Amino acid sequence: MKLYDCNTAPSPRRVRIFLAEKGITLPIVQIDLRTNEQFSPSFRAINPDCTVPVLELASGDKIADAVAICRYLEVEHPEPRLMGRDALEQGVTEAWLRRIEVEGFYSVMDVLRNTSPKLKDHALPGPLEHEQIPALAERGRRRVEALFHRLDAQLSEREFITGPHYSIADITGLVTVDFARWVKLAIPEDCAHLRRWHRAVSDRPSAKA
Amino acid sequence: MKLYDCNTAPSPRRVRIFLAEKGITLPIVQIDLRTNEQFSPSFRAINPDCTVPVLELASGDKIADAVAICRYLEVEHPEPRLMGRDALEQGVTEAWLRRIEVEGFYSVMDVLRNTSPKLKDHALPGPLEHEQIPALAERGRRRVEALFHRLDAQLSEREFITGPHYSIADITGLVTVDFARWVKLAIPEDCAHLRRWHRAVSDRPSAKA
Repeated sequence: MKLYDCNTAPSPRRVRIFLAEKGITLPIVQIDLRTNEQFSPSFRAINPDCTVPVLELASGDKIADAVAICRYLEVEHPEPRLMGRDALEQGVTEAWLRRIEVEGFYSVMDVLRNTSPKLKDHALPGPLEHEQIPALAERGRRRVEALFHRLDAQLSEREFITGPHYSIADITGLVTVDFARWVKLAIPEDCAHLRRWHRAVSDRPSAKA
Repeated sequence: MKLYDCNTAPSPRRVRIFLAEKGITLPIVQIDLRTNEQFSPSFRAINPDCTVPVLELASGDKIADAVAICRYLEVEHPEPRLMGRDALEQGVTEAWLRRIEVEGFYSVMDVLRNTSPKLKDHALPGPLEHEQIPALAERGRRRVEALFHRLDAQLSEREFITGPHYSIADITGLVTVDFARWVKLAIPEDCAHLRRWHRAVSDRPSAKA
């Protein structure tokens, strides 16, 4: 089993933190997104979508999606549980994970990919060209700020996003907050609970992954 | 336990089909999206995001996301398994589910919400106003068509999207293909495998849900 990764990129960082929290070490193959190595013929043969992370199993099967990789690892290495323990926790964790992705992670990506001159014609990940849409960057900024306030309210009554246990929702939240700095979106001044949580999850050894 | 639903809407249809495949019946509360009942004070008290589906448990806990509801139900009622049986199947099913959502379901939503005069200032679900972005509708059309061709290739070698077993990826695929008709996006002429699969999954009793 091995992981195709890019150690500067936020999407595979989600898997790296997940692995660190589980105490799993894997052989890592670095794909350098800064030099467009993801578009090379050799990497296209591994993942025609030209994205990382990709988990390649001993069988040759591949999983090319950060959350789907975490799902596989959660089943193979259940402890500590990071995607919820019982039915309700699993449902609630999945709902928060998806909210943070759609309103946060993808919105930061919308800001970055629709404004960066380097990503002109690459407003979406992958091999196909898509023109930038400036209005989408503006909308992305508003959505990220709204999510930060919502997370602040949620964390006013809980240690972690879904309750007393650290989960994949916290991992996605941490990566989203750090990714938002790339487009100069900081935690708003009035979000003290979100800031307290961000310090705590950043202090875990896994955050260095 | 009860489900807040709208029997004309695609997002809760994913849960209805999932329930039908599991053989689960639940009390249903209809929320009429055509008359904007989701924005009423009484429904806002149930889900401040003003979206359906919402699953309300006997404990009062609520899960307000279609896939998170399915996750809860999969743990509580494991058979028949619709989200994968072993680790690899669970990972692969999740990867396809997420691809079909991001490239298909959300893209159809982008086309509809950024073109329909009725949805002016509601280019995203929920209570906040967002202006329509016409370029996003165009991009959505291209993404849906690309996904249909990709699914056709996948189905050229498999009975269902992830292999020999019907799964939540098929449910999301079926709902996406049917939702795409709302914006006049049909299965392309050259996608015979996708058409064969669509006939088969539409013939299952659950498709009437």
